[in-house]
Amino acid sequence: MIGRHKHLIGLEPLSREEILGLLQLAVSMKEVLRRPIKKVPTLRGKAVVNLFFEASTRTRTSFETAAKILSADAFNWTSSTSSVTKGETLLDTARNIEAMHPDVLVIRHPAGGAPQYVANRVGCAVANAGDGAHEHPSQGLLDLFTLAEHFTRVSGKPGGEGGKKKDVVPDFGTIAGKTIAIVGDISHSRVARSDLYGLTKLGAKVRFCGPPTMMPPGVEAMGATVHHQLREAVEGADAVVMLRIQHERIGDPLIPGTREYSKFWGLNAKKAAEWLTPTCAILHPGPINRGVELSSEVADGPRSVILEQVENGVAVRMAILYLLAGGAHEIDTPAPEGAARA
Amino acid sequence: MIGRHKHLIGLEPLSREEILGLLQLAVSMKEVLRRPIKKVPTLRGKAVVNLFFEASTRTRTSFETAAKILSADAFNWTSSTSSVTKGETLLDTARNIEAMHPDVLVIRHPAGGAPQYVANRVGCAVANAGDGAHEHPSQGLLDLFTLAEHFTRVSGKPGGEGGKKKDVVPDFGTIAGKTIAIVGDISHSRVARSDLYGLTKLGAKVRFCGPPTMMPPGVEAMGATVHHQLREAVEGADAVVMLRIQHERIGDPLIPGTREYSKFWGLNAKKAAEWLTPTCAILHPGPINRGVELSSEVADGPRSVILEQVENGVAVRMAILYLLAGGAHEIDTPAPEGAARA
Amino acid sequence: MIGRHKHLIGLEPLSREEILGLLQLAVSMKEVLRRPIKKVPTLRGKAVVNLFFEASTRTRTSFETAAKILSADAFNWTSSTSSVTKGETLLDTARNIEAMHPDVLVIRHPAGGAPQYVANRVGCAVANAGDGAHEHPSQGLLDLFTLAEHFTRVSGKPGGEGGKKKDVVPDFGTIAGKTIAIVGDISHSRVARSDLYGLTKLGAKVRFCGPPTMMPPGVEAMGATVHHQLREAVEGADAVVMLRIQHERIGDPLIPGTREYSKFWGLNAKKAAEWLTPTCAILHPGPINRGVELSSEVADGPRSVILEQVENGVAVRMAILYLLAGGAHEIDTPAPEGAARA
Repeated sequence: MIGRHKHLIGLEPLSREEILGLLQLAVSMKEVLRRPIKKVPTLRGKAVVNLFFEASTRTRTSFETAAKILSADAFNWTSSTSSVTKGETLLDTARNIEAMHPDVLVIRHPAGGAPQYVANRVGCAVANAGDGAHEHPSQGLLDLFTLAEHFTRVSGKPGGEGGKKKDVVPDFGTIAGKTIAIVGDISHSRVARSDLYGLTKLGAKVRFCGPPTMMPPGVEAMGATVHHQLREAVEGADAVVMLRIQHERIGDPLIPGTREYSKFWGLNAKKAAEWLTPTCAILHPGPINRGVELSSEVADGPRSVILEQVENGVAVRMAILYLLAGGAHEIDTPAPEGAARA
Repeated sequence: MIGRHKHLIGLEPLSREEILGLLQLAVSMKEVLRRPIKKVPTLRGKAVVNLFFEASTRTRTSFETAAKILSADAFNWTSSTSSVTKGETLLDTARNIEAMHPDVLVIRHPAGGAPQYVANRVGCAVANAGDGAHEHPSQGLLDLFTLAEHFTRVSGKPGGEGGKKKDVVPDFGTIAGKTIAIVGDISHSRVARSDLYGLTKLGAKVRFCGPPTMMPPGVEAMGATVHHQLREAVEGADAVVMLRIQHERIGDPLIPGTREYSKFWGLNAKKAAEWLTPTCAILHPGPINRGVELSSEVADGPRSVILEQVENGVAVRMAILYLLAGGAHEIDTPAPEGAARA
Repeated sequence: MIGRHKHLIGLEPLSREEILGLLQLAVSMKEVLRRPIKKVPTLRGKAVVNLFFEASTRTRTSFETAAKILSADAFNWTSSTSSVTKGETLLDTARNIEAMHPDVLVIRHPAGGAPQYVANRVGCAVANAGDGAHEHPSQGLLDLFTLAEHFTRVSGKPGGEGGKKKDVVPDFGTIAGKTIAIVGDISHSRVARSDLYGLTKLGAKVRFCGPPTMMPPGVEAMGATVHHQLREAVEGADAVVMLRIQHERIGDPLIPGTREYSKFWGLNAKKAAEWLTPTCAILHPGPINRGVELSSEVADGPRSVILEQVENGVAVRMAILYLLAGGAHEIDTPAPEGAARA
């Protein structure tokens, strides 16, 4: 149970408190992840099935890592949607898996709504690992976690000052009042949606930026401001999320070519130096198209918290699986401060 | 060891007692599978390798789930038979795997006889997960298990009366004297063969039904009666096993088209209501071609025990792996009745 | 740590003592591998990621088996190098994996130098599972292990005399002074290179043999003698390593056809009987092209130690992972002599 919810379909249905509870639990999980012996018996005898209808080695491995650290058994079930009517295959597959008694079914599907559809029809818990252009809640949560770490780090609060990048305990209250720019193909981005829901619930302001053809109509009603000039979107922002421009969209008549995209909406060292505030962080859900939406200097530079996002992704997914599988044991006692930081 | 056998190649070589022993063990295994913490240390330190020369996510996952619940390590080795002479590749692959000290080698292969061929040449135990049109013994066993549950449920015996679908302890003696119709492409079906061997050994009568071009000659000698009219085959039957019509066979000049197949040999709600006895169960080895051999109303209706088959498949495979790997520990004490049924 | 090294990139950088330490540890590991319950808690809570940019089920499964016997969690990450500039993808992928806190990253890559490139840029330990035509150190080590077993067996030393093939404790000192012929496509073989480095460090003499077009220039400077006649290369040799001739090279204008290759550089029973010493062993890294570089009579005959290589491969990889992951516990007490040999 995540608050009142048996499943995790998106951040939109979650309350501010439910999101904060998840994030707070992920703080403990990150401590476990960083131990030299990163194994707790919490979910022993529980089974997590990754049911992926789209290839995504990194998200799948992140969930698999999270499951194994918690001692759950992890299964990978990769499917294609090519052969049969999708709805039928999806539900038949999900029901077949359900009959094998998994505790959590982690679903990635190209169709928005697929995880909800399954959740309504099976007995086990469902976690959405990305569905079409709808939501990608674990990505939204790891972005919130990473932003809170960054804001705590630059805030001068105790624990945040002068420490190494990774040694901060995030204060999730720091997100309130901040401005986050999300740049790219907003129309097709489940990350943009989950980020928007999570950020606004925690009190941040969100700016969407991208070519007009990649901006869904009526998006202002969701609580974001819309910008078509990158400079305007990022100026004064506390963090910028650069979305991946999908190769398969290049060549689409509604979409600019790679060079044009990069010129107008990509971020390189020069623009970053001129337009961003000194403490503005850069996030990216990965994998990066280097030289398209992000230059290598920026991706690998001091503003980038992209690899922190990956690490926090495991911690957040541990928290998700723990809550959905109804962990039978307590997370065991943290190791002493020094030992925990390998 | 399954009775006198080091391997499980088929149900044909097993005696009635050996089959009953396996099924009885699967009853305990199903209890473990339904625990909230479904993990027993029985096969800790044992290794199970799934060597699949045909894609089958569901059978592979079922064996993998069974292995992990028993604490065995599970490995997946997927091969194609395209490049080299099959016999050589198969044996070289099997011997290579054997040299890594697995305890059970679970083999699926498009050629009938492949698991036996390997079993004769390796030191570890071999379980056949389906070989050509020969046998699919774990499917046969799970069908027997599911049928016994159904017959116990409708028998009015203690434990079977009025209970929910899943809360019955199967009495395998109920299979004797029953009539089971198996409908579809009998010629190419390893499921039909394993079901026939298992059912006749436990005293049931088997009717085979399908287009004449899908009926192997001389099948009566195996102990089944042959029918070409669906109505004739299913009337008075205690259960019907609808086989999957394989897409790749549609278009074969000897085989009718999808519409024609469905019209003559498919089962829909109308035919089911008119022709079947009130307690007749519907089984299907999956995955279903909805609208071809089975309509969705029937597949998802009250007669269907298709998802019970999937669940029982895990229990039966736990029993198979336990016996073949020579489990070092006893299955631990069952949880109290109430707790066991999660 | 393998001696002074955090990573295992090749055998070239290792000292004689470091190689001997690894091999000696593999002796204990082989004892664990042969137990009926082959599981030790040594690497519990450690994570091993197999990052394979080339398909290789057997090497991957060998590392996966080694990891699981030591109770580590094993993850498989298969990538293709087709879509993006290789260097970027490789490093981004490696850094993403690193952010999930693996302890050992096992890398196979078609480009020589890729594992070193990654090792220089990540925090976790890297094991090279074969990179281009550079090195394949675990294969080199398992060849050394297998040769030492063979030489001990035929030496008449205590433990070697009259025993069954598998029941010998290898004396690695027996390698010194021996002559090993390595036959095939030396130019493209990482196995030939790793074998050469390992063998010469332990005092053996190496002969390289193959068509002139498959022999790298200046190879004598590496310490091997060069031969173009198979007979000349294998006469008097204590062991022969037959390399796999790669199908994809057949048809290359510089390379002879299969028949011609087999005639001049393949080994069959007649040549083996006429040219080899009575105790000369045959090794092959697998998978064998039967009838090309090796006839089935030789591959399956009494001189062949090919399956011993596979078994020893797991033991050697257990030793590699143990040292690189910094095993937290001691390998637990070996079972008594008799019991250990299952």
